[in-house]
Amino acid sequence: MDLYEEALQLHREHRGKVALQAKVAVANAKDLSLAYSPGVAEPCKEIHRDEDLVYEYTAKSNTVAVISNGTAVLGLGNIGPKAGLPVMEGKAILFKSFAGVDAWPLCIAANEVDRIVDFVRMVAPSFGGINLEDIAAPACFEIEERLKKELSIPVFHDDQHGTAIVTLAALINAVKVVGKTLSEVRVVVSGAGAAGIATVKLLLSCGVRDVVMCDTKGAIYEGRDHMNPLKDWIAKNTNREHRTGTLAQVMQGADVFVGVSVGNTVTQAMVQEMASDPIILAMANPDPEILPQDAKAAGAMVIGTGRSDYPNQVNNVLAFPGIFRGALDTRATTINEAMKVAAAYAIANLIADDELQPDYVIPRPFDTRVAPAVAQAVAEAALVSGVARVRVNPRDVAERTRQMASVRD
Amino acid sequence: MDLYEEALQLHREHRGKVALQAKVAVANAKDLSLAYSPGVAEPCKEIHRDEDLVYEYTAKSNTVAVISNGTAVLGLGNIGPKAGLPVMEGKAILFKSFAGVDAWPLCIAANEVDRIVDFVRMVAPSFGGINLEDIAAPACFEIEERLKKELSIPVFHDDQHGTAIVTLAALINAVKVVGKTLSEVRVVVSGAGAAGIATVKLLLSCGVRDVVMCDTKGAIYEGRDHMNPLKDWIAKNTNREHRTGTLAQVMQGADVFVGVSVGNTVTQAMVQEMASDPIILAMANPDPEILPQDAKAAGAMVIGTGRSDYPNQVNNVLAFPGIFRGALDTRATTINEAMKVAAAYAIANLIADDELQPDYVIPRPFDTRVAPAVAQAVAEAALVSGVARVRVNPRDVAERTRQMASVRD
Repeated sequence: MDLYEEALQLHREHRGKVALQAKVAVANAKDLSLAYSPGVAEPCKEIHRDEDLVYEYTAKSNTVAVISNGTAVLGLGNIGPKAGLPVMEGKAILFKSFAGVDAWPLCIAANEVDRIVDFVRMVAPSFGGINLEDIAAPACFEIEERLKKELSIPVFHDDQHGTAIVTLAALINAVKVVGKTLSEVRVVVSGAGAAGIATVKLLLSCGVRDVVMCDTKGAIYEGRDHMNPLKDWIAKNTNREHRTGTLAQVMQGADVFVGVSVGNTVTQAMVQEMASDPIILAMANPDPEILPQDAKAAGAMVIGTGRSDYPNQVNNVLAFPGIFRGALDTRATTINEAMKVAAAYAIANLIADDELQPDYVIPRPFDTRVAPAVAQAVAEAALVSGVARVRVNPRDVAERTRQMASVRD
Repeated sequence: MDLYEEALQLHREHRGKVALQAKVAVANAKDLSLAYSPGVAEPCKEIHRDEDLVYEYTAKSNTVAVISNGTAVLGLGNIGPKAGLPVMEGKAILFKSFAGVDAWPLCIAANEVDRIVDFVRMVAPSFGGINLEDIAAPACFEIEERLKKELSIPVFHDDQHGTAIVTLAALINAVKVVGKTLSEVRVVVSGAGAAGIATVKLLLSCGVRDVVMCDTKGAIYEGRDHMNPLKDWIAKNTNREHRTGTLAQVMQGADVFVGVSVGNTVTQAMVQEMASDPIILAMANPDPEILPQDAKAAGAMVIGTGRSDYPNQVNNVLAFPGIFRGALDTRATTINEAMKVAAAYAIANLIADDELQPDYVIPRPFDTRVAPAVAQAVAEAALVSGVARVRVNPRDVAERTRQMASVRD
């Protein structure tokens, strides 16, 4: 039986991947009187008196909504909320398995920005954080931006920031391997979707100075045709040498290629034209922009993909469980740039300099050090940047993550 | 430590009562490739091809949303979504414990009918059914009515129908105990809120012919002041003798008192004026309309309340777990009158005629026969009335309920 038939069977056999777990037994009249009527009125009254007590008396403090409208699911595109549900259920069990976060999948029938924003606004009281997922660009940008302004719980669009954080982590180590620095490399990012734009922003905030972004029309620069407000922003804030032309042209002499586009769009010739010791992160799924063996044969030094069957898998699961663990445990009001950068460095720094190798610049998904390290770094950054609402010891957050995770060495 | 302090401690200690359970382990790269990328794309594609397969490949088929806006929580009134969360979490674990239904609590910040309707419409793809809870009248009526028309999954406002069903179950047996029939008794219902109106409707559909409903202004009749469209309906369809006056006046000569109002509103004198062998269901919480010992001393023959510390507890938990189990397992598009009536008779019939006593007209909440019997009856009624979308053997539904429940003898 191949992987695909096996995946279908797994989903069919269990009828999905999530269920409710009752944390409190209801086995007799006494239990019922405590967990439900009349005893339950007491926590209700307490929360009514001081609404912050909702974090003490309910599951809110450990609960995240995984919200999607199914408009940009994996590489499958707009398949709708029902067909997107298996992915959101998968995300939910990753939250639980890697960091003990209770995430509930909510796939919603809504395409309009206003309705999606209103949905999240309405549901927010029940959750400690909101993970937006697989919502198509450009709607995803406005939705996240508006919700971040309105809500006092973290709102995190993982396709943007999760990808950006793990890409940054990989790059931090990759430049070390090739003896360069973030501030001196020239980076070409191919793909101007949610992940690409968030990656560019995060790279810029971490010292990368020379980035050129390409879409299907080639380099994005000021004054070009086929622009939109986001690309205008990219044009203004990147491509300082005002490069024009095709992806192949701007890759000439570049140090780093970051692909968040579609498969088979980079040739060996294009890699050969890059600067010395090229770094290739070809993350299109399921087919990368160039296959690792082809990139290597063309001279690439460090190669990463989104796939588990090659070295250096750039996988969001390295980031989001620990990020939300750290944000929930500090009751952070947001996930800010400092927390994202801290997460990226925490991931990168798990590999000591003397362990770094071209085939090992990013920890493996099941490295159990990752989620605790990320949670600790994110908690610390939340505290230092002033968005934490409770004071905790970041090392305790790491320990708690270890205890709550079901993934074990 | 008293019950109230103990309830607070229970909620604090566990930080609420619900968590996510991963039905599928994610312990290694193989697991990840099946439950998440790339394997998860297969069920997504299957559901995109035929959206009904969402019932096969996701948790939808066993999952109910417990949705409240916190405007009518217990006897506490409009305490808001956060303060309502402990009740909805409680409801969720009752669904799980009594019938293995995965219910997720969603307390929402919304008071407008349109927004609440839109919320449920948006979230519906992820759930097999919708349990509305603790939403104030009259908004709750319009919300449920609109959603029932729009959605093809069951929408059930438990405060209305759960209460109505269990009340009917109690009455079916109570009239037997006093040697009367539903068609000959005169019933007075006190309280014109969600529960009262639904109870009247259900009683009328089950052969009760003489009902008078009272609100705080006394009997509701055609031409009275202080009316609204719902009370107009009540006036038109009940009170065929056009009785007027106070609750005390209309209780004179009545056979049955059903209280879904507020505590201490019925006196012993009022009971004494009723017909022979009065039946009193005084379900106001926490204080009943009249205390059982007082009603008994005044001559009441059968007395029920909403409380666990008296006999004949009229508790919704007898109904909703089995009702949703039966509706989910038949993939019913709605919960119709036939299913509600079937549930009531299933509950009542668990007590054999020779076991019936004034203090035992309704099964106890932890009677493990109840949920399977209700599920079976509801499944059967769904099949017969043509709202089931899959064919199952109702006896298998009962057996499945027994297996999935955690409540044991």
